[in-house]
Formats: sequence, structure tokens, C-alpha cells
Amino acid sequence: MKKPIVIKKGLSNDMRFDLKDGAGSDAIHVKPVYAYAVCKLVTDSDVEGVGLAFTLGSGNKIVCQAIEYLVKHVEGKEIYELMDTFGATYKKMADDPNFRWLGPHKGVVQLALAAVVNACYDLWAKAEGVPLWKLLIDLSPEQLVNTLDFSYYEDILPKQEAIALIKNQRAGITQRESIIQTGYPGYDTSIGWFNYTDEQVLRNVEEAMNNGFTAMKLKVGAQNPDRDIRRAELVRKIAGDKATIMFDANQQWNLPQAISVCTKLKELNPYWIEEPTHPDDVYAHVALAKAVDVPLALGEHVPNKIIFKNFIQSGCMSFNQVDAVRVGGVSEFLLISLLSRKFNIPVVPHVGDMGQIHQHLVLFNHITLGHPALLLEHIPHLRDYFKHPVLISDGKYQTPMEPGMSADLLQYEYSY
Amino acid sequence: MKKPIVIKKGLSNDMRFDLKDGAGSDAIHVKPVYAYAVCKLVTDSDVEGVGLAFTLGSGNKIVCQAIEYLVKHVEGKEIYELMDTFGATYKKMADDPNFRWLGPHKGVVQLALAAVVNACYDLWAKAEGVPLWKLLIDLSPEQLVNTLDFSYYEDILPKQEAIALIKNQRAGITQRESIIQTGYPGYDTSIGWFNYTDEQVLRNVEEAMNNGFTAMKLKVGAQNPDRDIRRAELVRKIAGDKATIMFDANQQWNLPQAISVCTKLKELNPYWIEEPTHPDDVYAHVALAKAVDVPLALGEHVPNKIIFKNFIQSGCMSFNQVDAVRVGGVSEFLLISLLSRKFNIPVVPHVGDMGQIHQHLVLFNHITLGHPALLLEHIPHLRDYFKHPVLISDGKYQTPMEPGMSADLLQYEYSY
Repeated sequence: MKKPIVIKKGLSNDMRFDLKDGAGSDAIHVKPVYAYAVCKLVTDSDVEGVGLAFTLGSGNKIVCQAIEYLVKHVEGKEIYELMDTFGATYKKMADDPNFRWLGPHKGVVQLALAAVVNACYDLWAKAEGVPLWKLLIDLSPEQLVNTLDFSYYEDILPKQEAIALIKNQRAGITQRESIIQTGYPGYDTSIGWFNYTDEQVLRNVEEAMNNGFTAMKLKVGAQNPDRDIRRAELVRKIAGDKATIMFDANQQWNLPQAISVCTKLKELNPYWIEEPTHPDDVYAHVALAKAVDVPLALGEHVPNKIIFKNFIQSGCMSFNQVDAVRVGGVSEFLLISLLSRKFNIPVVPHVGDMGQIHQHLVLFNHITLGHPALLLEHIPHLRDYFKHPVLISDGKYQTPMEPGMSADLLQYEYSY
Repeated sequence: MKKPIVIKKGLSNDMRFDLKDGAGSDAIHVKPVYAYAVCKLVTDSDVEGVGLAFTLGSGNKIVCQAIEYLVKHVEGKEIYELMDTFGATYKKMADDPNFRWLGPHKGVVQLALAAVVNACYDLWAKAEGVPLWKLLIDLSPEQLVNTLDFSYYEDILPKQEAIALIKNQRAGITQRESIIQTGYPGYDTSIGWFNYTDEQVLRNVEEAMNNGFTAMKLKVGAQNPDRDIRRAELVRKIAGDKATIMFDANQQWNLPQAISVCTKLKELNPYWIEEPTHPDDVYAHVALAKAVDVPLALGEHVPNKIIFKNFIQSGCMSFNQVDAVRVGGVSEFLLISLLSRKFNIPVVPHVGDMGQIHQHLVLFNHITLGHPALLLEHIPHLRDYFKHPVLISDGKYQTPMEPGMSADLLQYEYSY
């Protein structure tokens, strides 16, 4: 019999981090300030849950205010009981009548939901004394799907079908578990931030390769496409033909521009082109995918399971970049991963969490759902702020072993 | 030469209104609290601009906080200069790097944008001393499109095409202007709120018809579809075969449920069925439109021009219910109306503003864009709070003549 652990109080914290020397810059954010809207769950025990939503800039503050309201749904709840039927609580929070009009299921209220939901899963794993990946792979299919909300998935992935999908992946699990020892392959996002000079990019590519990375991403989406092409050619030249290279446009192109520039970038054999145009524009991505035969990676700014469902149904998404600190936390991430598995679309998350949480989730996706173990994004700029920063060795994420989801921050009391 | 009017300061106000005896109730909101996130622009003159975003419940507060930040983009600006190239300012606000991650272009930040943008148009019309509809129909096509942001519409409605569309509608303008005298037809939304008893619905239908309404809307979306059918049959029976009747499900059905219930409701010959399922789910609406031959009215919860573009392209939208207090204000409403005109989809706005602003916008849509003058929703519950409440006579909106967009509220200092 486990000792009950009751959530006494939920707190929020607005944490922001200045980045230096062009780090983090993209086609939209010239001087980025990374920010976490943090939800902390204080209990009657010595464990506490910590959940993150990632944002950029001073708007982080209003996400924190939304957390303070939403977290009341879990205050007073016992954690094992809560997680036993978490899908129902998730739905109550997502449809709270004081917040629903502000979405539904998108924007500030959805980011706040992510932080609260993540704090619940973190607390659950800490209560069990295991890392999140271990908790998740040890759940029965029924226990797992009971933490998810299948509303509006009845037409495409009913709960029973999700259970069957998980059970069908049992063959090969032992083999896939070997990744716990070998580590999950990473890719380097920081070789080519938007503001970096060609010389910086050149040095970073060499350094990435020396550190064992064989995959790396360049920021594109310049007003002048010639700059994009020049930088892309530079990366391909230095990294060599065998390297895996991705280009990320951060939504900067309209459809005619996207078709034009992607046609040129395609010549450099990219593994994918990321966020070519507006993240809500399913039909523009479909048109682009038809016009240019290049894989598209989408989902960094897609807020919920419904729009993911549409992208998956549309056929234009080659790689699914769902981010557990943008959609409604681990719960919605897992549901979207299930649907993506059904349609054989690999999940390669965007890591607003700097990979801290997603290193757990991709292990679950690979081991339990049978997703291929492709690549997990690596961004090093906030590692000094985490209590248990990710460990990368020879380009691979080393499996985290501390209890929880590795989201605890140092300097926790530092806030706006 | 006009006297320059400079915006000195932008303020927000969180105004909420309890509704009584089941008024406003729908399948989601059992005890609704209507709320306005108000933006007030104080100038160096005696006119001030008032802009609204509509929400429900206590979340209204965080929209007001977002207004306080966003409004800094227009403080210090001269109103005629500002509106001369307002499309550019609109884009700056919509893409503000401190807020963009929180959307983009949806949720709390988009609602805040609506309030600020609406306050600018209101101030502009008041400065000119004319009602908004008059200001808009008197603008040249070039002046009008310069207040819009065509980003991501390059593939479907470039600026030059929008100008040509407006010019092509010049024939027939004089005839269409006669609506200023005759009034714009309204429909009654308050006959059948979700919580009303059958007896109340019966009385309300009779009262609506006595007041000259020939079109009315019933809330459906019950857990038990038999309740929906019974109420729908009651309304059809009392109102008669000639009445125009709509059913509004407020997103409560998943796709299989929507197909099932719509198949039955179709037998009652509805003018439309509104929001049958999740407002983000373009593909589910397409599937529903294919499965059941009944017109769908969509858009009340669609946050921006991109998702409207997708709905319009998809072919499933029979009536466009864009709401200028949900999308990015009058500016984005006009752009979406232009696109809708190109695709011959009538605009019948949802009226979070209780019709105060939209009575101006539908006149513009009819007179300048050549949209048909179908119906404008009428909801009476907040009329006591407005300085110039809409005037309905014999079921028709009487053309407003006071300067501005009729959004000024009484008891302005009452706030949370």
C-alpha cells in the first residue's frame, strides 16, 4: 500500500533567461528572452511536482497568472487517485468555463494547462521514485490511456483502438529497450542561429561534429533568400554529404515564397524543412508538399490535438514536432504520439524544455509505441539553470535516472 | 486640414455582467457571465476610442492585462496618420515578439489585439464625426486595404485583387444603400437558450414573432439528443413552416454524434446548423458536410484569418460567422469578409458585441462588398449597459447614426 500524497497548494513562477551573442535568434525573435511559466505543486510529503510551459518574452507573466487559476483543479487531490483517472481531470481543466472562451485549447490558457499537467506527471513519477520514462513504460495500456482525454478523437482513434495499438507493439519491446543503454540520438540546433555570422556557423558545425553530432539544424527565413541559400550551402559543404541537415524557416514565408525557396533548398538534400509558413495553415502546407518534394517538419506552434489531427489527416506532415510544453502537457503529447504512430508519422519533438522532459517522452514513444528512434533536438543554452541537465555523450542523450521528468530548476526563487 | 488628434494613453477595463434566469446558457456555459475586455484610448482632444473584446467569465482579467501591454504600440500616435497605414501597425502588434509565442494570432493575445484595434477604428470614426459604417463605405478601395494586413493571404487574395474586388462591386451600390433606410434584418438568438424550459421557449417564439422576427435560433447539443429533437420540433411547430430556424450545438458533438443528430435535425429544414463540433477541426466539418446535406454556420470561435482561409478553402462553410470581437478586430474582420466575398460565402457574424459593432460592419459588407443582406444576430441581454444600444424595429436593425462604432458602455468605471 502506497502512502497517499496530497497536493496542498499550486504556485506559479515567471522565470526568464537572457540569451547572449545571438544565441536563440530566429527569423522572428532577434533578441530572444527564453522564459518558463513554472507550476510547482507543494504536497503534504517531501516531494513536489514541477511543470513547465515554455514561452518567449514578457508575455510569460500572463501564462503564470493563468496557472494560478487553473491549478485549483488539482489542489486537495491525492496524486495516485488523480492520475488513476487523469483524463477526466484534464478535460475539466481544458473546458473550464471561465477559460474556455479564451481558447478553446490554445494560446495562454493552453500553455498554462501544459504547466499544470506536467507538474502532475512529475509529481507522480517522483512519488513512485522513478524517472518519467520508466513510469510510463511500466503502465498497463489501460492505465496509460486513462490519463488521456479522447474527446474529438472518437472518429479517428477511439480509446479501445489506442489500447490495441499499444498491445500490438509488445513484440520487439525488449530489443527496443536496449536504447536505454545506448542512448537516444540527438541533433544540434545551435550551429546556425539566425544572427550568427558565416564564420560562427562554420566553427559551430565543426565543433558539433567533433562532439559526435551527425545531425544539425540551420535557421533560414531571411528577407533575402540568397542569404538562406548561401548559409545552407556553407553548412552542407563543411558538414559533408553524409551529414543530416535540417532547415528551419520559423513561419517566415508565405506560400509562393515557400515554394520558391524550398525548391532551391531541396537541392542540398535536407532531412526536413521546418515551419515553412504559418503554423495554422494546413492547406498551404498541403499545397507546398504537392509543389515541392521535400519532407516537412511541423508542429512546434500547433497548440492542440485537433489541429495535429488535421495536419496528420492532410498528409503534408513528414515529421511531427509536437512539444509537451506547448500542447496540454505530457497527457496531450502522448495522445498525439499515439495518433501519429497510427499514421506512421515519426515524432521528433520541438524542445521548448531544452530536451529535459522530451528525453523521457521519446524513450516511451520508441519503447512502448514502437516509434522509430530518430533524433531529439538539443539546445544547450539553459543547461546551467536545471538541477539535472541533460547529459549528451558522443551526440547521444544519456538516459536520465533521477525520479521525475528532469524539469526542476535551480534558482527557483528567482522570478519576475 | 483636419486637426491632429494624438493618443495619449491606453487603458483597459475588465467588465462583467451576470445574466439572469438561464439567459445566455448553452451546452458549455451553464451559468454564463458575459464579459468585455475594454480598451479605452484617451487623446489630447475631447474624443476617446473604445474597443471591445468579448469573453465569458473571470479569464477576462488576463485579456485586460494583455491589452495594457499591447496598447503601447499606439500610444503617442496621431489617429489619422495611424489609420493611413494601419495594416503595418496591425502586423507589428500581431507579431510583437513578447506575445507571438503565446499565439501566434490566437487566444488571449488575439482577443487583446481585437480590443486595441477596435478602439482605433472607433476613435477614427469619432474623430471624423461619423458612424463607422459611413466612414468605411466612404473610404477609397486603396485607403481601405491599407488598414488591412495581407500577410499569408498572398496565395489567395493579394492586395491588388482585393482592390479590384471592391471596385467590381461599384455597380449596384446605390441600390444597396437603400438598406440604410429600410434597416438590416435581424434574427433572435434568445428564444431558446440551453437551460430554458419548453414553456419558456414556446412563449419566446411567440414573442419574437410578435416583435417582427421571422428568423430565430435554438440552442442544442444536449447529452441526450432526444431533448434536442423535441425542442427543435417544438420551435418548428410554433414558428411555422415559413420561419427561418437555426440550431446551435456550441461544439458539443464529436463527428459521429454530429452526423447522427444533424441527420435528424435536417428533417426540420433548418436554415443552418451552427458549430456542430470542435471549432479547429476543419476536416471533421468537411466530413460532416459530405455526410449530411445541411448548411453549416461556422466561425464563432475561429481566431484568425488563417483558419478562416482554411475553412473557406475546404468548402464546408455555408455561412461565415466571423466575430470582430474575437478575431483581430475590425481590420481582420474586413479582410476575412473580403475573402469570403471572393468565395461567395455570406457573412452572418456571431455578435459577442451584442450587434453594437456588427450593425456597422454588415452595412459595409452589403453596400461596399456586395455581400447579401441576410441576417444579423440579436441578443438583448446587455442593452442596458450601452450608451447607444441597438435599435430594432419590426425585426430589423435601425441604422446607427451616432459617431463611432456604438461600443461605448455606461457605468464605464465599474470593473474588477
